[in-house]
Amino acid sequence: MSMAGPGSIARRGFLDILGGLAVAAQLEGVSGEARAAPVDSTVGVARFGGRSLQFTDLTHKLTRQFNFDPSNPRISMESVDGSGVAVGMKMHRLALIEHTGTHIDAPSHFGEQFKSLGEIPLSDLVVPLVVVDISAKAAKSRDAQVEPADVLAWERRHGRLPDGCCVAVHSGWDPFAEMARNQAAHSHNSTGFGIEAARMLAEKRRVKGIAVDAMTIDSGPNVPSYPVHQFWLRSGRWGIEGITNLRSVPPVGALLVVGAAPIAEATGLPVRAIALF
Amino acid sequence: MSMAGPGSIARRGFLDILGGLAVAAQLEGVSGEARAAPVDSTVGVARFGGRSLQFTDLTHKLTRQFNFDPSNPRISMESVDGSGVAVGMKMHRLALIEHTGTHIDAPSHFGEQFKSLGEIPLSDLVVPLVVVDISAKAAKSRDAQVEPADVLAWERRHGRLPDGCCVAVHSGWDPFAEMARNQAAHSHNSTGFGIEAARMLAEKRRVKGIAVDAMTIDSGPNVPSYPVHQFWLRSGRWGIEGITNLRSVPPVGALLVVGAAPIAEATGLPVRAIALF
Ligand SMILES: [Zn+2]
Ligand SMILES: [Zn+2]
Repeated sequence: MSMAGPGSIARRGFLDILGGLAVAAQLEGVSGEARAAPVDSTVGVARFGGRSLQFTDLTHKLTRQFNFDPSNPRISMESVDGSGVAVGMKMHRLALIEHTGTHIDAPSHFGEQFKSLGEIPLSDLVVPLVVVDISAKAAKSRDAQVEPADVLAWERRHGRLPDGCCVAVHSGWDPFAEMARNQAAHSHNSTGFGIEAARMLAEKRRVKGIAVDAMTIDSGPNVPSYPVHQFWLRSGRWGIEGITNLRSVPPVGALLVVGAAPIAEATGLPVRAIALF
Repeated sequence: MSMAGPGSIARRGFLDILGGLAVAAQLEGVSGEARAAPVDSTVGVARFGGRSLQFTDLTHKLTRQFNFDPSNPRISMESVDGSGVAVGMKMHRLALIEHTGTHIDAPSHFGEQFKSLGEIPLSDLVVPLVVVDISAKAAKSRDAQVEPADVLAWERRHGRLPDGCCVAVHSGWDPFAEMARNQAAHSHNSTGFGIEAARMLAEKRRVKGIAVDAMTIDSGPNVPSYPVHQFWLRSGRWGIEGITNLRSVPPVGALLVVGAAPIAEATGLPVRAIALF
């Protein structure tokens, strides 16, 4: 199964911008493949043991072009020979910046004394998912951030945030379109969480993780002081940056599965983020 | 939540072997941390939208010691400075052989013309999970492989394999204990799938993936000709190597979520493998 989804519109916008800004040279080697779109077969139904669950892929496909700084490539691979090279085995040594694509920030991203990715228990990665939509205010300001009032407005409609949940923000941010705009304008705009909302979610509610469709949980004006990263990660909680496809998920009632390989000492890693409902 | 699980016994065996063979030098730098054990909090219950599901982590924690050839390290990381270095941001460039730890083999592992990891749709990675236990015959032969008779015996007890499932094999293989034994004995024993069973699962049943607790889907005597890899992966299907904790999952009725980041062109990748039931 597959669907067009909101990503298609964003991507069309991106391609228009690409044409306008003639940044094609920067994307050397890009095939016709979608760069910003979620992977194919984004939505479907899984049946198991007499149950059935819808699933939605919340993950951007990660290509070598998912790279905002051509002088410092975030992902590369080189072929290495395995024991089956004589019968056609191929494999790579893959090198990547941990914070690339749709990825998790572990607490150790802001200090080695905090939990690394390998120390986050699965019980913190399989959690109720809540989607807060701030796209209306993000359409007015490219630095829109989640405020306590946004959470309270959500709760008036959907009830109190479930204990142990992840709060994911749909702002409509598209990593390729927005980074192209930022590069062209020498700006650093981004949607994100405000520090007051982060404190509220940690202290007045029982939230395990936050997720943003932008590439930073802090909004643009808070980079590079990163108050939300500092507070939230050092509280032992995690973040996901570059989540997508949140419009295909109900505001409440889904389960988020953060498919993060448990690599010891990693401060972050590309993940497969999946909603089940 | 956490539990002792079958891994503990295997690990105790490993530590005994370590003492006996005095291979400690090879494990230089290993902390007191468990190497072979699944990550903490392996089992729990997730509640969402009025439902509840048990979850089990089927993933080995991936450390730099998950490395069978000290001359060719499979995972390494170096610090890189991000934009938040002034406020304590830490991150790494991570380098790893794609086929490390609990990992997926994409079809492109046996030919670039076959699907890479980024091309496997989520609908092939969220599938019913079946567990076939061959530990009784694996206790007699370290090269025990899944034969069609094992599948038929499973079906007599549990019914026909569900369409689109992953067939995972519990042989009791522990990567650390077994690789230490193989290195000490200059042997290449391993449990795995036999080619007849692989053909049966592809041609007579509708199976999407296979998974083994060993580190190769082919059994030891079939390395390095790899008939199962050649047949199975080139048929467009995937495999998981190094899965664990299958004794904590029912033989039928669970859902497997293969948390594999969709990296374009990758032939494999460490994953978070999760059972829900
Ligand atoms: Zn990050
Ligand atoms: Zn492999």
